[in-house]
Amino acid sequence: MTAAGATADIVLADWGTTSLRAWALDRQGNLLDERRSDSGMGTLSRDQYAPELQRHLSVMGVPDETPVLICGMAGAAQGWQEAPYIEAPTDFAALADGAITIAGQAHVGQAHVGQTRDIRILPGIAQRDSARPDVMRGEETILHGLVCNGVQDGTVCLPGTHSKWADIAGGRLDGFRTMMTGEMFALLGDRSILRHTVMSGGWSDDDFITAVGEAHADPSRALAGLFGLRAGPLLFGDAVPHGASRLSGLMIGAEIASCLHSDGKPLHLAATGKMAAHYAKALTGLGIGFDMVDAELAVRTGLFDIASILWPERIPQRPQGGTTE
Amino acid sequence: MTAAGATADIVLADWGTTSLRAWALDRQGNLLDERRSDSGMGTLSRDQYAPELQRHLSVMGVPDETPVLICGMAGAAQGWQEAPYIEAPTDFAALADGAITIAGQAHVGQAHVGQTRDIRILPGIAQRDSARPDVMRGEETILHGLVCNGVQDGTVCLPGTHSKWADIAGGRLDGFRTMMTGEMFALLGDRSILRHTVMSGGWSDDDFITAVGEAHADPSRALAGLFGLRAGPLLFGDAVPHGASRLSGLMIGAEIASCLHSDGKPLHLAATGKMAAHYAKALTGLGIGFDMVDAELAVRTGLFDIASILWPERIPQRPQGGTTE
Repeated sequence: MTAAGATADIVLADWGTTSLRAWALDRQGNLLDERRSDSGMGTLSRDQYAPELQRHLSVMGVPDETPVLICGMAGAAQGWQEAPYIEAPTDFAALADGAITIAGQAHVGQAHVGQTRDIRILPGIAQRDSARPDVMRGEETILHGLVCNGVQDGTVCLPGTHSKWADIAGGRLDGFRTMMTGEMFALLGDRSILRHTVMSGGWSDDDFITAVGEAHADPSRALAGLFGLRAGPLLFGDAVPHGASRLSGLMIGAEIASCLHSDGKPLHLAATGKMAAHYAKALTGLGIGFDMVDAELAVRTGLFDIASILWPERIPQRPQGGTTE
Repeated sequence: MTAAGATADIVLADWGTTSLRAWALDRQGNLLDERRSDSGMGTLSRDQYAPELQRHLSVMGVPDETPVLICGMAGAAQGWQEAPYIEAPTDFAALADGAITIAGQAHVGQAHVGQTRDIRILPGIAQRDSARPDVMRGEETILHGLVCNGVQDGTVCLPGTHSKWADIAGGRLDGFRTMMTGEMFALLGDRSILRHTVMSGGWSDDDFITAVGEAHADPSRALAGLFGLRAGPLLFGDAVPHGASRLSGLMIGAEIASCLHSDGKPLHLAATGKMAAHYAKALTGLGIGFDMVDAELAVRTGLFDIASILWPERIPQRPQGGTTE
């Protein structure tokens, strides 16, 4: 029996701080095999990236001549090899121009040297504006996926440890902003005095939505309401709202208030799993319309499109702005 | 040579989470001796309080019959012995009624049993309001000290790990609110992704005051401006503002915006050391008038006054509302 990846024309990977997700695809973009691991920039030293990737490629049976395209923190200065930021505002095709080739894996012209594989990493995007300096790595490829799927104008919310909110105009990235919502929730819930009262007890959607509404109406509540998460249980015991729900709601409500412009443009929520569910509840509770995009499908769409620019001999380019087959 | 504390009529102590400060005074309130240590609720088990206190009393030569009055976290449920909260709104004389006597140190009537010392701990104050639940332990005694020194109406800012803002009306505590400003600064500066960029480099008063102004004008900046403290140095290197100054300014500016009512009442800043200097700069930068109160002197004044209520045979009561001799 042949491994599923033996006929792969391209391998795409989203390699972040805490995980690696790799997909083997054929030239039409059909998924042949995939791999996930918890080996991210946070745990890997520079020389561990190549063997870690090869391990997954071997399991999938991917031939040595199949190229690999990577986005995410693997391209950070402290990652595998730095892919310097391109600058916003920008179109997303510029990501292809900014891709770097992994040293020691170089190809000469179109000819591979020996058995070395062609591995490239996409750049992140920097907003070099001293009043609102910002950076992203990985999210730009999700955004490109949305544009490939027809999003030309609108706001995109990409929730996470560091949530990104991006403005897309004419299919280009106009600007973006980052909120440390997920990290703040973890710091306060796990390491602050609130840990005693916040992390015990269950989750309540009602308490979450109430807190989202409070902080959205008055973002200063996100900080001013925190100590009540300790004092409330001290004074009222179990008769107070579920702390984790309230803490999460305060942070997410303030994020939406700070990041969503009231410009009437369509809002796209690009997320997966629990994060998608939380933000969808928050937006719905606020009466804000949005459409939901699967962030994992979007990053694959974005990577595949850039791969068709970088390796046109392998992957036929699809018309821009349409839907995927 | 006799130890300075041998003639002490009273020992006062502020025993918090991270430190103990104890003062031996005569009946007129003159300071005879003092002791400081880093042994607070955070490091002491319940049975370590008595020997720790006695160690300091012995060094000062305080006689066994001299009583001790304590305020602060030593009276918390997880401290030496719980002194249950009294409830706001309240006058400060109620602190005397709420004082507890350390078990095993009890006196019968006015007669001491054997050599056991009369040791009492003051209660904290709870705001049992489900919309703004709050608690304090230690700060109430500073506030009482201000009232003893003539403050009848106004707002008092008590900066710290958990800053308290109190409303005093007619010499009573009307209400209060807590901001986790100091803890938030420490969490973000030491444990978040900002630690790499925030804690390197020096301090700039100008950058601090600019950030105070930004967050005071728009408290949502306190969260929305955080990631820029990482992205700025990544993109602009040393040409960006000093991170710690900006982080501190964002937190303090948001605190002042959230906690200071614009009711025109006088503002009193009760603090010591670096904290006093930072908040004074922030308020001055915002053009907000205030008077500065030494929080350590105020807590002694408050403790001494309560001691005169609890032990009238030892300490003659002073007229209320006047100035100290």
